[in-house]
Amino acid sequence: MRYKVTVSYDGSAYYGWQKQPNVHSIQETIENVLETIHQYPVEITASGRTDAYVHALGQVFHFDSDKDISQERWKAAFNSQLPKQIRVQEVIEVHEDFHARFDALYKRYDYVVTNQVDNPFVENYMVKERKQLDIAYMQECANVFLGKHDFTSFTSNKIDPRKSREKTIIRLDIVKEEDCIRMIFVGDGFLRYMVRMIAQTLIEAGKHKLTKEDVQRMLEGKNKHLCRYKGAPQGLYLVYVLYDEEDLYILNEKERRDEK
Amino acid sequence: MRYKVTVSYDGSAYYGWQKQPNVHSIQETIENVLETIHQYPVEITASGRTDAYVHALGQVFHFDSDKDISQERWKAAFNSQLPKQIRVQEVIEVHEDFHARFDALYKRYDYVVTNQVDNPFVENYMVKERKQLDIAYMQECANVFLGKHDFTSFTSNKIDPRKSREKTIIRLDIVKEEDCIRMIFVGDGFLRYMVRMIAQTLIEAGKHKLTKEDVQRMLEGKNKHLCRYKGAPQGLYLVYVLYDEEDLYILNEKERRDEK
Repeated sequence: MRYKVTVSYDGSAYYGWQKQPNVHSIQETIENVLETIHQYPVEITASGRTDAYVHALGQVFHFDSDKDISQERWKAAFNSQLPKQIRVQEVIEVHEDFHARFDALYKRYDYVVTNQVDNPFVENYMVKERKQLDIAYMQECANVFLGKHDFTSFTSNKIDPRKSREKTIIRLDIVKEEDCIRMIFVGDGFLRYMVRMIAQTLIEAGKHKLTKEDVQRMLEGKNKHLCRYKGAPQGLYLVYVLYDEEDLYILNEKERRDEK
Repeated sequence: MRYKVTVSYDGSAYYGWQKQPNVHSIQETIENVLETIHQYPVEITASGRTDAYVHALGQVFHFDSDKDISQERWKAAFNSQLPKQIRVQEVIEVHEDFHARFDALYKRYDYVVTNQVDNPFVENYMVKERKQLDIAYMQECANVFLGKHDFTSFTSNKIDPRKSREKTIIRLDIVKEEDCIRMIFVGDGFLRYMVRMIAQTLIEAGKHKLTKEDVQRMLEGKNKHLCRYKGAPQGLYLVYVLYDEEDLYILNEKERRDEK
């Protein structure tokens, strides 16, 4: 059987999703639980990696198992053995063709920045910015990124040169909340560091250190040296991964309604 | 000069307020900063201790200094040297008779409980409760504690027998919020563990494991064996300490208005 799992995690205590020697990763922590259950190693495949200190509300992974356990009991088995900073939200049995990475249609990432520099409770959960940000101008600059673009200027240098840097952003909203500013990114995929680099670029625009024309030039230049900004990881949340076109429209509509 | 300082802290990383050997305390961390500034040890006196893992939005302490530094510069000096989990909110020069503990008139503590057992982000900041709570009944039971009472049944055994256990609670509201239930305690002082013991008693009442009559008997019995409940520390917040009768009425009115 193949299972699709939705999981939330507080990334503060982990060195990112991916298994690596000598550090605690989310992937390894979850695989350890599966190994205890099966008595042999079981690999999991995520929709994509998240970097160190990045959080997830709805990361998705899949794994195969010969155990015929009900969905509710799988969830309980995970959550009774996982540390409290990692919580499985849902386990669903899926077709054996399902693939958490290849089948992902859309992802939502939120980037959260706050002016509450003296608030000790947001340290691991938001990025602190002393200056007031011009939200209307941030939104204007954010619109530059909407649609299909080559995002070479907004990703890590180390990316595989054979891989396409074309991605489509279908939503980039700057939303003022009570104690923070939330940037909502929805797209068909995001390159390494792309959300954090765009987010910090928009913060600089919000401080009027960059103009909309600067942002446009950075994007159109398709040059890895053009953007020297990268936001801190603790402001970043993987909110959901969608595998069904229809879910996107339902969700977007619901969220826009909630925000009113 | 004597200075009055208001400080917030995320208690997760500290073993409480009070200086103790071999553990990190909030008091020691702050005194270390003052020693660096003065080049000799400076003691600070808080409105009262907070236990390990308990948070504060507005703890108050005082200290004496021969340094004539402006209030704003004191704040900046503290916050540039303190870890980000401890943030000074305000420094005010006060009369040399001011005493953070003896002059405190009222304190507010909040105790926060949530049904979101699968939320990994509240682990250190709320107490998780799987069962739905009957909030109206919790409020009914909470009202038992209003006014002046001997709280012997709701404190630690180790308390000094010569100390009075009479305290006055002037507000105990059970407030439903979006993702949690907040219990708001305002009183002229609280004995050791008193808020956590009353809070857990009210949670048991909210699950209908205790009746209002049980609660009444526990309080009136004035016996340290009558209450065997004590809520976990991470749900507890010291919200403010008041030194001026007038502030209380202004604050209470404002808070009640905000909650509507």
